[in-house]
Amino acid sequence: MNKQQRAARTRDALIRSAAELFERHGYDKARLAEISSGAGVSSGALHFHFENKAAVADAVEDAACLSLRRAAHKVSLCRTSPLQALTDVSHIFAYLLSCDVVVSAGFRLSCDPTRQKELNLRQEWHSCVQQLLTRASDDDILTREVSLQHLVASVMAATVGLEVLGRDNKEWLSRRSLTGLWQLLLPRMAARHAQDTVDPSGTDLVINAWALSMGSGSLSPPAR
Amino acid sequence: MNKQQRAARTRDALIRSAAELFERHGYDKARLAEISSGAGVSSGALHFHFENKAAVADAVEDAACLSLRRAAHKVSLCRTSPLQALTDVSHIFAYLLSCDVVVSAGFRLSCDPTRQKELNLRQEWHSCVQQLLTRASDDDILTREVSLQHLVASVMAATVGLEVLGRDNKEWLSRRSLTGLWQLLLPRMAARHAQDTVDPSGTDLVINAWALSMGSGSLSPPAR
Repeated sequence: MNKQQRAARTRDALIRSAAELFERHGYDKARLAEISSGAGVSSGALHFHFENKAAVADAVEDAACLSLRRAAHKVSLCRTSPLQALTDVSHIFAYLLSCDVVVSAGFRLSCDPTRQKELNLRQEWHSCVQQLLTRASDDDILTREVSLQHLVASVMAATVGLEVLGRDNKEWLSRRSLTGLWQLLLPRMAARHAQDTVDPSGTDLVINAWALSMGSGSLSPPAR
Repeated sequence: MNKQQRAARTRDALIRSAAELFERHGYDKARLAEISSGAGVSSGALHFHFENKAAVADAVEDAACLSLRRAAHKVSLCRTSPLQALTDVSHIFAYLLSCDVVVSAGFRLSCDPTRQKELNLRQEWHSCVQQLLTRASDDDILTREVSLQHLVASVMAATVGLEVLGRDNKEWLSRRSLTGLWQLLLPRMAARHAQDTVDPSGTDLVINAWALSMGSGSLSPPAR
């Protein structure tokens, strides 16, 4: 391993250690000395990479953002219907939020109103939901009984609720839990001719292709 | 006004001032001196009623809890169907969260994991949803296509999401927003013979009876 690789590995370890401490004690109470010792490096090594705690937090947020954007991009390449893509990407995001401490800590940091940042992953998720449902509406596979605006808002509310509830109990973010939500919503969201074309438990092919490409194994099988 | 009435009024003013500061700056950053000056009383008067900041926060939580329990009790007296009662009580809770700073601050405090308290208003709301949907299931007015457990979880996720999103933008808690959510969910939750028996915008009679009894005027009219 050359010097550059070692530096990148140390930086990653610091980001992970910080994410774990932010999740356990909150951003305010996490101390720099604990972050460096959690990563198994000296405080000098931490200061080589990061100026202060805010800079470490920015790096956690950026890493979370990158993981989520990569997942959304992977799903978009699979060319499923927009309703299926929304379902699939929500399953993958829930998996990342429940199993990757950098994603969960970064997501929470980016939604913290006391940190005045431009990046807000919740707003980015809102845009993603809006775009996919607008495409579904353009493709004429959405019900006309509920307005597009209310569909976007309801999906947003339900998924944000799962993210917040999942902070205390990961079961809210399980594939089983997401599948239950989509079993309720999809038949009401889809137009009559598009009923039964979307798998509420997510497309195995899409999800496993993503999981394998990330080296994360696969999502737990749905309990149907 | 006698001495006892004056004391009660001072206590209420301190609770409201504390709630406003907790909402604006967060619990950690709110200072006792600001709480007393916000209520227009001396710090001596604050210490007559509350030992410390944690005691003021407990009082904010208790007051929020009382308002929400009273509202749920009022709705339960109206003897509508359990699905209508769930819809009505969610409208009233959203109204309280958006317009009563003591309710919103108390709700947020009770969900703060760094405060180790027995009372958690989110868990109490979960029990309320569980009870009303179990009654709906017993009355045979729920769909059998989605399990009771998934119905409870989905309603819980969507309403918790609205509460959290409503912290930054009150529009999420408007009657229009709640009505949109129930327009989506109710036709999928209700059994076929119970379709169209529930008003997603809430029963005017129930909601206005509650609003008048609280002296709060009435909820804004729904935009349908």
